[in-house]
Amino acid sequence: MGKLLIVGTVAFDAIETPFGKTDKILGGAATFIGLAAAQFEVDAGIVSVVGDDFPREYLDLLEQKNIDISGIEIVQGGKTFFWKGKYHNDLNKRDTLVTELNVLADFKPHVPEKYRDAEVVMLGNLHPDIQLSVIRQMKRRPKLLVLDTMNFWMNHTLEALVRVLAEIDILTINDEEARQLSGEYSLVKAAARIHGMGPKYVVIKKGENGALLFHNDEVFFAPALPLEEVFDPTGAGDTFAGGFVGYLAASGNNSFNNLKNAVIHGSNLASFCVERFGPERMTSLEKNEVEDRLDQFKELTQFDIELR
Amino acid sequence: MGKLLIVGTVAFDAIETPFGKTDKILGGAATFIGLAAAQFEVDAGIVSVVGDDFPREYLDLLEQKNIDISGIEIVQGGKTFFWKGKYHNDLNKRDTLVTELNVLADFKPHVPEKYRDAEVVMLGNLHPDIQLSVIRQMKRRPKLLVLDTMNFWMNHTLEALVRVLAEIDILTINDEEARQLSGEYSLVKAAARIHGMGPKYVVIKKGENGALLFHNDEVFFAPALPLEEVFDPTGAGDTFAGGFVGYLAASGNNSFNNLKNAVIHGSNLASFCVERFGPERMTSLEKNEVEDRLDQFKELTQFDIELR
Repeated sequence: MGKLLIVGTVAFDAIETPFGKTDKILGGAATFIGLAAAQFEVDAGIVSVVGDDFPREYLDLLEQKNIDISGIEIVQGGKTFFWKGKYHNDLNKRDTLVTELNVLADFKPHVPEKYRDAEVVMLGNLHPDIQLSVIRQMKRRPKLLVLDTMNFWMNHTLEALVRVLAEIDILTINDEEARQLSGEYSLVKAAARIHGMGPKYVVIKKGENGALLFHNDEVFFAPALPLEEVFDPTGAGDTFAGGFVGYLAASGNNSFNNLKNAVIHGSNLASFCVERFGPERMTSLEKNEVEDRLDQFKELTQFDIELR
Repeated sequence: MGKLLIVGTVAFDAIETPFGKTDKILGGAATFIGLAAAQFEVDAGIVSVVGDDFPREYLDLLEQKNIDISGIEIVQGGKTFFWKGKYHNDLNKRDTLVTELNVLADFKPHVPEKYRDAEVVMLGNLHPDIQLSVIRQMKRRPKLLVLDTMNFWMNHTLEALVRVLAEIDILTINDEEARQLSGEYSLVKAAARIHGMGPKYVVIKKGENGALLFHNDEVFFAPALPLEEVFDPTGAGDTFAGGFVGYLAASGNNSFNNLKNAVIHGSNLASFCVERFGPERMTSLEKNEVEDRLDQFKELTQFDIELR
């Protein structure tokens, strides 16, 4: 059973979509990553920080999914990171209404001894210096260092971002961010530029338009499963990343062909995430539902043209 | 060798992209459809109309590709349909600068006797009544009636469009048009609505984001091949349709599994079309280039997750 270290936010989200709205519910990148990774035979631990306003039942929920939460620091008298957002009618755009960093403002991740030899490390979207400080705590170089980031860090801490990019194996990033980071409109050229910054593999997430995996001249594409209705896209990108690293940590095989499978597993799990508010769907997900939908992915993408 | 009837425009295009501009060059939906279909073992004939300003060399070019041009009427003293457009920097949007219908304004397609028993009929984007008049000229119902249309006809001749939709097998349409025609944002729901209007199959074209094939509850997706540079998108949708119907006419197999292959062949040929201005790349295309790129499509989309 592979060991997977996940570093990222565990937080409160309040979400408004055309279909409804929530009060403060469980959210945060590490939450979605962890819940997706927990679908695989993997020893996953989260490093994060919350305030003492964070409900014990949310932590219990993660533990029930066999996620190690010993690395989630609870700051007494502190308040948990809170994000509130509202989606536009087509769900492809959203406005951030509230961002309260709270305890995240002083977050200094401390990796528990048990996870300092993790084979796979998933660095969720955080300040690049914080991401780098996690790498520095590892006993030996992990087999796979995967990093997620966003345009905010390109705008405000580009030098730090470039420093941590030089040390990782795989960058996951959305299409607009890939264009911003590389200065290239073509995603093929953007991925080549980003390869040059360090990552051997680049995963470009295109939301409802799927995800691309680049490795030198090789490229693989997984569509998003066409759904009757996307209810709430919150966490879909992190769920994708969690399925991706969870599958890789469980299989212990980092070949390009197996990375393809990891992209499919990530896309598959993300297709569930968007069906309900926040992580609700992910917490009730059954193994047979996951496998049935993998069948649908095969039907969706596989063909049998005989070549030459 | 299957017989394929193609009805649509043969025209002059003038194109401006961020990479350059052309004077009047060969264009028109039927031109792109024909050149793509000609990649397969098929007896393809075009029904269209041009003026006597249309260069003989363009007609010769189509004939050299074994496309039957006996159904292209040449109106003495008439001028050929002319479209001029300019693409935005990201090539996903374009402005129409000039549309001169010319001889197209009075176009009454006359299907040559030889093609009145064609197994496959591709009705390119034209007034729905004109498309219907072609169906009425067929000796017996073709095995496959495929129709392309656009938002202009939904805005101005919706009743006529609904009439012809009730008679066809496959509608090819882009994502925005599918949403407009169905009143549904979700493409899954849009396809279901359009099924209800007549077509057993709905192909939704998403440009650089690939194409979806719907049939009742079944769905198949083909990505667009990620390219370093898209030079000129003009004709890509028609090239896709031409590859799709050309392959189906040649294979004589209209099963859903073979329609999947047809979608891949269409996407494959469209990936060449966008590499040069207008139909330039399609006229020089070699069989081995087409097959090499089919290999790339397999690499891009095929994976080997073992299920249960």
